[in-house]
Amino acid sequence: MALILGIDPGSRITGYGIIKAVGNRQEYVTSGCIKTTDRATLPERLDVIFQGVSQIINEFIPTELAIEKIFMARSAESALKLGHARGVAIVAGVNQGLPVHEYEARKVKQAVVGTGSANKSQIQHMVMTLLNLPKKPQSDAADALAIAICHINTQHNLARLAGKGATVIRADRFRRGRFADDGGRK
Amino acid sequence: MALILGIDPGSRITGYGIIKAVGNRQEYVTSGCIKTTDRATLPERLDVIFQGVSQIINEFIPTELAIEKIFMARSAESALKLGHARGVAIVAGVNQGLPVHEYEARKVKQAVVGTGSANKSQIQHMVMTLLNLPKKPQSDAADALAIAICHINTQHNLARLAGKGATVIRADRFRRGRFADDGGRK
Repeated sequence: MALILGIDPGSRITGYGIIKAVGNRQEYVTSGCIKTTDRATLPERLDVIFQGVSQIINEFIPTELAIEKIFMARSAESALKLGHARGVAIVAGVNQGLPVHEYEARKVKQAVVGTGSANKSQIQHMVMTLLNLPKKPQSDAADALAIAICHINTQHNLARLAGKGATVIRADRFRRGRFADDGGRK
Repeated sequence: MALILGIDPGSRITGYGIIKAVGNRQEYVTSGCIKTTDRATLPERLDVIFQGVSQIINEFIPTELAIEKIFMARSAESALKLGHARGVAIVAGVNQGLPVHEYEARKVKQAVVGTGSANKSQIQHMVMTLLNLPKKPQSDAADALAIAICHINTQHNLARLAGKGATVIRADRFRRGRFADDGGRK
């Protein structure tokens, strides 16, 4: 069983979401936001993000961390702000021994909506549908859950390509079928 | 007594330098670089910076952290890289309870060289002179020491403006002078 912590970092709001992956099944565990106030200084805001992510890891003991990979920011100023928050979120995970995986926004959207150009509302809707949630998660939490889903799907596909995981499941099904047939014949 | 840890963050090389401030006197304690390799992943590199800064804090127990404030980076890409490293260095300090102070590069140069447009070599030379070092420190370590010197000078000037520190010294001198005069008259 893998427990994936998805993180959507931001200098004002950092979304998080945890999903449990058992074989092909994905179960929602928790999600939410770490919010900082504009009145706080940069060191104070970074501390809130670091302590927040660390606290979530301590409480839910995820096995892996998945985070959005950023190639292009709108401006150098916004890139710097985002870089601070993202660096802190990553190091909070590494500091607690979690492997960290990075996924491009396009790939995350592709994984949950099927197109790399999906908007925020489509992501919220698809995350709700895929995880059987009673309502749409908050936007940043939905992005974090989408990143976790993307990671699980990617690992699953990699395992299938490598002849593990999915292949083992298929072999199990096949064996069970054979046993049933055998039982039927006897 | 204040023990200032200056940090010059970078995604490849993070310079550090510690200076002890006793009244008007500044004493060199240590300096060096935390280096990451290009072969390492981003999470690995950020972990090296976080663990490196944390280790320096554990070993030398500084009382404050001073770091360069960045307004403008050359590009969004370099801003993002620098932001990651800088965020991690700041949070390593805050996580250990250190107050963090930020200074613009212009102000740091002004503090050690006397002009906001000084080059790296001038900073190395002046840091060596101001701290009575036997040779020029490595460039990033010199920048970190310059940031620590800038912080000490700023605090000293603030204290003087607030009627503390330097003013108290002047009052003491005046009083001592008066006592001597009184003694002379008696």
